[in-house]
Amino acid sequence: MLSKSQIRFITSLHHKKYRQEHQCFIVEGIKSVMEFVQSSYAVRAVYSIAELAPKMDKIPQKIKFSVVSDVDMQRISAQKTPQGLLAIVAMPDADPLTPEALAGNHTLVLDDVQDPGNLGTIIRTAEWFGFRRLVCSANTADAYNPKVVQASMGSLARLEVHYTDIEHLLARTALPVYGALLNGEPIYEVSWAREGIVLLGNEGNGIRENLLPRIDHAVTIPRVGQAESLNVAVSAALFCSELVRSKGAWK
Amino acid sequence: MLSKSQIRFITSLHHKKYRQEHQCFIVEGIKSVMEFVQSSYAVRAVYSIAELAPKMDKIPQKIKFSVVSDVDMQRISAQKTPQGLLAIVAMPDADPLTPEALAGNHTLVLDDVQDPGNLGTIIRTAEWFGFRRLVCSANTADAYNPKVVQASMGSLARLEVHYTDIEHLLARTALPVYGALLNGEPIYEVSWAREGIVLLGNEGNGIRENLLPRIDHAVTIPRVGQAESLNVAVSAALFCSELVRSKGAWK
Repeated sequence: MLSKSQIRFITSLHHKKYRQEHQCFIVEGIKSVMEFVQSSYAVRAVYSIAELAPKMDKIPQKIKFSVVSDVDMQRISAQKTPQGLLAIVAMPDADPLTPEALAGNHTLVLDDVQDPGNLGTIIRTAEWFGFRRLVCSANTADAYNPKVVQASMGSLARLEVHYTDIEHLLARTALPVYGALLNGEPIYEVSWAREGIVLLGNEGNGIRENLLPRIDHAVTIPRVGQAESLNVAVSAALFCSELVRSKGAWK
Repeated sequence: MLSKSQIRFITSLHHKKYRQEHQCFIVEGIKSVMEFVQSSYAVRAVYSIAELAPKMDKIPQKIKFSVVSDVDMQRISAQKTPQGLLAIVAMPDADPLTPEALAGNHTLVLDDVQDPGNLGTIIRTAEWFGFRRLVCSANTADAYNPKVVQASMGSLARLEVHYTDIEHLLARTALPVYGALLNGEPIYEVSWAREGIVLLGNEGNGIRENLLPRIDHAVTIPRVGQAESLNVAVSAALFCSELVRSKGAWK
């Protein structure tokens, strides 16, 4: 049985303030937990309901493992329908992000993406397409929010996520900046440089106006129908796919 | 003020059983409501909080319009944070879907897509790319579920959605069937026929086994990283984009 203070500590991690204070976050579900166990992340503790415990023999001995009641799992889980397995994982040390670190690759940069489901889907998709790094503005949703972790389906374990002042970053980089905008060059006709930044904006407001002068190439996903906009995770996926296609990275 | 029976009727439409019984559904938010008002759908009634009512002068006189209290809006809304405007819209008469109706175009067919957010995003994306019609297996999420309507961002007003026995449909069609599968031909190398069906499977289980013999071309979105799968709405978007690119439909 979990003590009150244990429950209080774990549920505090549902909130960004306490995740930052304690420098750790929650991962739930067998698949996602195993992805973090097998990654470079430090898994601090794993809590399992009795039903799943026998299947957990792949979790290394050094990780603290506790069997908890279904009621306690319901208490500590951030999900409406808990999956029965929950890990506490340490946040990685954030390397300071320098413009030089982005050279030689393409990097997605998110300007205030708000929806945790969208951010998680972007992490999952970017990792599928072989991206190593995601850069987010300070006001983008927190990648360690339980909803983001869940939507990323374990891919967060393999993708570096950086939070930074992107205005400052864009001002200092010499890389070409491609911005997802309306009325730009059709994405199917872009000649991509071999390295660069792809900038995607907020769900409702797009890219902030003060960042527009930093965009070298306005790029548009052509619209055939009448929808007003695309979901930002869908737009991110289409940019990732185009970059992978143009570089032949999938061959 | 709304009567108890009015509130009971509207909230019953949060549930599929009553949507089917009454053949109508709920649309919320200014943007989405206006899309339906301007579409071929019959809007039965619009409920607005006082604050928004003055902006509603574009709603035709023939549509029943009621101003309701914030408390009543909270009661009838299917959203945690109501947007203050809710319409009751009649479901369209479903034309029976014949294999002939699909000739000359590409059509997305969904096999048991479960998540309302995914279905709504697929509707929004397909409509953006100019698709006219979406075909769903009987067990796919209900397109008139309030969460689907919300995620579709009004695009449901312009896209026909059909529910049918897709095994039967695929058995009778002469069109080429492209299935989203692992280990198929890379999507970037496919020579698409000028008409056909694109079949996408369930979030967890993919395409049902009994449908596999109906697939003429297994198509894969190449994986560069290590993620196990892509979100189905992301996959659908990548197929839509490839079709539009290959047909030059965006020019």
